[in-house]
Amino acid sequence: MNSHSVRLRELIAEPKLAFAMEAHSAIAAKIVEMSGFDAIWASGFSISSAFGLHDRSEISFTQLTDIIETMVEASSLPVLADVDSGFGDFNNLRLLAKRLSRIGAAGACVEDKPFPKLNSFADGRQALSPVADFCGKIAAAKDALLNDDFVLVARTEALIVGAGMREALRRAESYRLAGADAILIHSKRSTASEVLAFSREWAGRCPLVIVPTTYAKTPTSLFESTGISLLIWANQMFRASVHAMLAVCRDVARNRSLKGVSHQLVSMDEIFDMLDYASLASDEKAYSGDPALSVLESG
Amino acid sequence: MNSHSVRLRELIAEPKLAFAMEAHSAIAAKIVEMSGFDAIWASGFSISSAFGLHDRSEISFTQLTDIIETMVEASSLPVLADVDSGFGDFNNLRLLAKRLSRIGAAGACVEDKPFPKLNSFADGRQALSPVADFCGKIAAAKDALLNDDFVLVARTEALIVGAGMREALRRAESYRLAGADAILIHSKRSTASEVLAFSREWAGRCPLVIVPTTYAKTPTSLFESTGISLLIWANQMFRASVHAMLAVCRDVARNRSLKGVSHQLVSMDEIFDMLDYASLASDEKAYSGDPALSVLESG
Amino acid sequence: MNSHSVRLRELIAEPKLAFAMEAHSAIAAKIVEMSGFDAIWASGFSISSAFGLHDRSEISFTQLTDIIETMVEASSLPVLADVDSGFGDFNNLRLLAKRLSRIGAAGACVEDKPFPKLNSFADGRQALSPVADFCGKIAAAKDALLNDDFVLVARTEALIVGAGMREALRRAESYRLAGADAILIHSKRSTASEVLAFSREWAGRCPLVIVPTTYAKTPTSLFESTGISLLIWANQMFRASVHAMLAVCRDVARNRSLKGVSHQLVSMDEIFDMLDYASLASDEKAYSGDPALSVLESG
Amino acid sequence: MNSHSVRLRELIAEPKLAFAMEAHSAIAAKIVEMSGFDAIWASGFSISSAFGLHDRSEISFTQLTDIIETMVEASSLPVLADVDSGFGDFNNLRLLAKRLSRIGAAGACVEDKPFPKLNSFADGRQALSPVADFCGKIAAAKDALLNDDFVLVARTEALIVGAGMREALRRAESYRLAGADAILIHSKRSTASEVLAFSREWAGRCPLVIVPTTYAKTPTSLFESTGISLLIWANQMFRASVHAMLAVCRDVARNRSLKGVSHQLVSMDEIFDMLDYASLASDEKAYSGDPALSVLESG
Repeated sequence: MNSHSVRLRELIAEPKLAFAMEAHSAIAAKIVEMSGFDAIWASGFSISSAFGLHDRSEISFTQLTDIIETMVEASSLPVLADVDSGFGDFNNLRLLAKRLSRIGAAGACVEDKPFPKLNSFADGRQALSPVADFCGKIAAAKDALLNDDFVLVARTEALIVGAGMREALRRAESYRLAGADAILIHSKRSTASEVLAFSREWAGRCPLVIVPTTYAKTPTSLFESTGISLLIWANQMFRASVHAMLAVCRDVARNRSLKGVSHQLVSMDEIFDMLDYASLASDEKAYSGDPALSVLESG
Repeated sequence: MNSHSVRLRELIAEPKLAFAMEAHSAIAAKIVEMSGFDAIWASGFSISSAFGLHDRSEISFTQLTDIIETMVEASSLPVLADVDSGFGDFNNLRLLAKRLSRIGAAGACVEDKPFPKLNSFADGRQALSPVADFCGKIAAAKDALLNDDFVLVARTEALIVGAGMREALRRAESYRLAGADAILIHSKRSTASEVLAFSREWAGRCPLVIVPTTYAKTPTSLFESTGISLLIWANQMFRASVHAMLAVCRDVARNRSLKGVSHQLVSMDEIFDMLDYASLASDEKAYSGDPALSVLESG
Repeated sequence: MNSHSVRLRELIAEPKLAFAMEAHSAIAAKIVEMSGFDAIWASGFSISSAFGLHDRSEISFTQLTDIIETMVEASSLPVLADVDSGFGDFNNLRLLAKRLSRIGAAGACVEDKPFPKLNSFADGRQALSPVADFCGKIAAAKDALLNDDFVLVARTEALIVGAGMREALRRAESYRLAGADAILIHSKRSTASEVLAFSREWAGRCPLVIVPTTYAKTPTSLFESTGISLLIWANQMFRASVHAMLAVCRDVARNRSLKGVSHQLVSMDEIFDMLDYASLASDEKAYSGDPALSVLESG
Repeated sequence: MNSHSVRLRELIAEPKLAFAMEAHSAIAAKIVEMSGFDAIWASGFSISSAFGLHDRSEISFTQLTDIIETMVEASSLPVLADVDSGFGDFNNLRLLAKRLSRIGAAGACVEDKPFPKLNSFADGRQALSPVADFCGKIAAAKDALLNDDFVLVARTEALIVGAGMREALRRAESYRLAGADAILIHSKRSTASEVLAFSREWAGRCPLVIVPTTYAKTPTSLFESTGISLLIWANQMFRASVHAMLAVCRDVARNRSLKGVSHQLVSMDEIFDMLDYASLASDEKAYSGDPALSVLESG
């Protein structure tokens, strides 16, 4: 049993909308928790980009799970792992799902594209996997999971590639029947029209997940009333960190001084607090060679 | 031969002050390069913190070198690796130095503390290694390096632990004689008085490196005129990213909307540009199954 | 709860002697299980040697745990991880113990030497940690463990360094009181006299573990009657594999033919059987694009 | 420049037949070197099997390169990396080739199958990549390589899948024109007839590599006279180690004694010799706190 998976399962089952925020590192995961979110989205795009890699299946799955493991360690929130198209076929996906479950991730989200996949918003080839192949992946992962509570989210890119609403619904229903615990319906429209239409037709067959990157201006309240279970802000922590690093770095390079940027930096002490250096100092006293621990020292 | 090491060696040999900025990820390294710095400081504090770990030798040396390898790949600047106290004794340091050289780091900076070490600004035990031990480490690393140009910087914490200027100078001279290519003189004073006094006494025996974290208000021009070779801003990229992620994450959590933060985010397209997705798209055309590549296809 | 830890705990609690065999890879772990042993000893010496490294704390703790994770996956036996002196102080050991517990290791064995440590049978400095320091390590690891069943074995090198029986007993008792679940009493005598004497004096205060490398000629039955809980053959799989590889490799190099060695090789089919390629083939049929999985394909 | 690549390039250019032996670990690589081989074959099958994984693209490419890095470190022989079908498309292969070059591998061998691939001797689907796709991969890898000497071997599975000699030749020629430095012609016949026929038709257009696993009984002298450049014994070290571990482990389990197996084990001292513990002991003296290294100690 994995308590993180149980929690994520509850979150998507509850009638009210849950909120997840992207993280790409343990410190980002900790900040997501401190800010009051329900869950963490371990974004493939953000983690790859932090590694200087394209969001095109360039990162290895062990590089990905190693980073996710640090997030699980750093936060008590459930972590939903973005595993792209599963790093191969049914066999690769199920091995990956087992590994994620073992390291304490709450669930995984896999998309119906062939490997290697390309970011949904990047220019280039975007294709869908055959439905039967993707259903085989879902079934294999569910069958393999040691932890029955591990949440498998199936993401369809049908609307992204322009295959239409009917295809999106057909795929989502196939994935649900193959064992998916939730459906992520992705759209790159500038409004929420597509996901809202999908949600109406879907009619609550299983939990729905959305990622409002391009339709971020839609008021969240609209989603709360239409049966969406989980809303993921899928890349904003990374985009905020890059924005800040660019500004600070350029200013320091230009002015050869921190004067202009000091208000844009947390202090060292704030970081020490976030990472609880105080308990480290007290543990040092408790555990470092305290002679009381060696009752027979003078024996 | 490692061209990054040659470049770093030039930078510290030149009479003018060179500037390095901290990075803790490949994307941060890329931003440091884009901003016009001379070199990258792969900070142990920042990388550990990004992993959710204390800057107390909690990260493994392979976790550290794996991240540094992504930085070397992502940028053409020389990367100076902060290796804390060397992850053990002379033997651990020399193995680490060889690994760093192999993956293309330009140099390493090792400090004269026992393993595990604690961040210089954190509360807790701060102790110095015996001089002879630390000289043994330096000599072993220099003897082991496959790449003669690899730069070994010896950092003394003598002023940090309150051992005094005389001890700092004595140690620096011992380290220089043991083979160190440069000396990092660390201070946690709020002014630059200590490092300037050290620099005067040192009188250019070998290049000096400084880290103005606590004495950041000192005008950089002061260092330019006093024989300092390299100034490292050792944690500002990380502190900027945490500051921004905290602000954005809290705002989105509170308002359940991106409205208040959208000006604090780079766009997806900016990230695609930074990571040159355009060349990826053109490579896709060039290399993906172009029948012209298969001259005998119809054979 | 970790079922492997529960099993290991049972094994050392039972009155009869349990047997563990070394493994240094997943395939070796699988062979240990196939052969009928009770547990697997993930040997630091063997894993380091397989990496071409000295058994002197040269391997990083994440390299070690990555290999151990493959062993846990490959076998259903409990894996007892040899963690040398704990890769640092109390804080390093507790982080490592938590990581091992998370990846499913049943327990860890830590020895009372400073870091870096040297193999007990190699020439060179052999020293003991102060008792109070080592007790602090044990207490910190026990306090930190998420999984209460995880087995912490404290190994004393008192007899190895020549500190005498009285010191060995004093240390073992301190470690037991600090929280160790079992004591490994190590000896490099050519007979079992030392460990038998220790066992008599110990009188069952907590389970005892032995490693008959140098006193391998002692009949096992002798240990069965003297209150030893677990006997570890700590390096024989590795030594057998090196012996065989040397013989085969030299023969093939000399004769430029496999003729002389073919009887010393398992067949490819035997390896396919050990790793159950048959189920892979049937899974391929079950999960690869079976249209039946896509009930709505024609929708 | 990578001296290992230069050496491998020489080996395949020379008129006489060169010999490579498989290794799946650093210690195996060291044994291959000690035995007098020309090169090391870092086998995907063996490394995967040692990890308990199927030879079906289950291992991540970073797990593979991490192990290969230990082999490069442990031996002075050139290491030819078996990279299966390249872990994806042209982009994945070129990233992998760059990584291999950076860590000092001499070359890589990539086969013309889709990802994930299945071992050539295992039951199940065996398919070929389209020629144009595979030529794109070769071209991309060659274009990306930082190290011009890195050797790219293209392996065709045309004979394995039963596509015939004509197809094998057509593919080999396409791969050569796309930039491959050598061709590996694979066969699973019990005699060498296919590879000899191929070699005659090929007529030395570029170096040929063979892997006599199923046709191991063919006298090596036959290959020496027919223009083969490199013969790889691709899995025998692993198969020898498994054979020995099975025998020893079962004997010890049955007899609860090492008596029956002690002649099948190398001694601890032999391993210490192989890994040069003697130099470690002398380095310890040279570098550990020798006061002479601290000329100013009494300053």
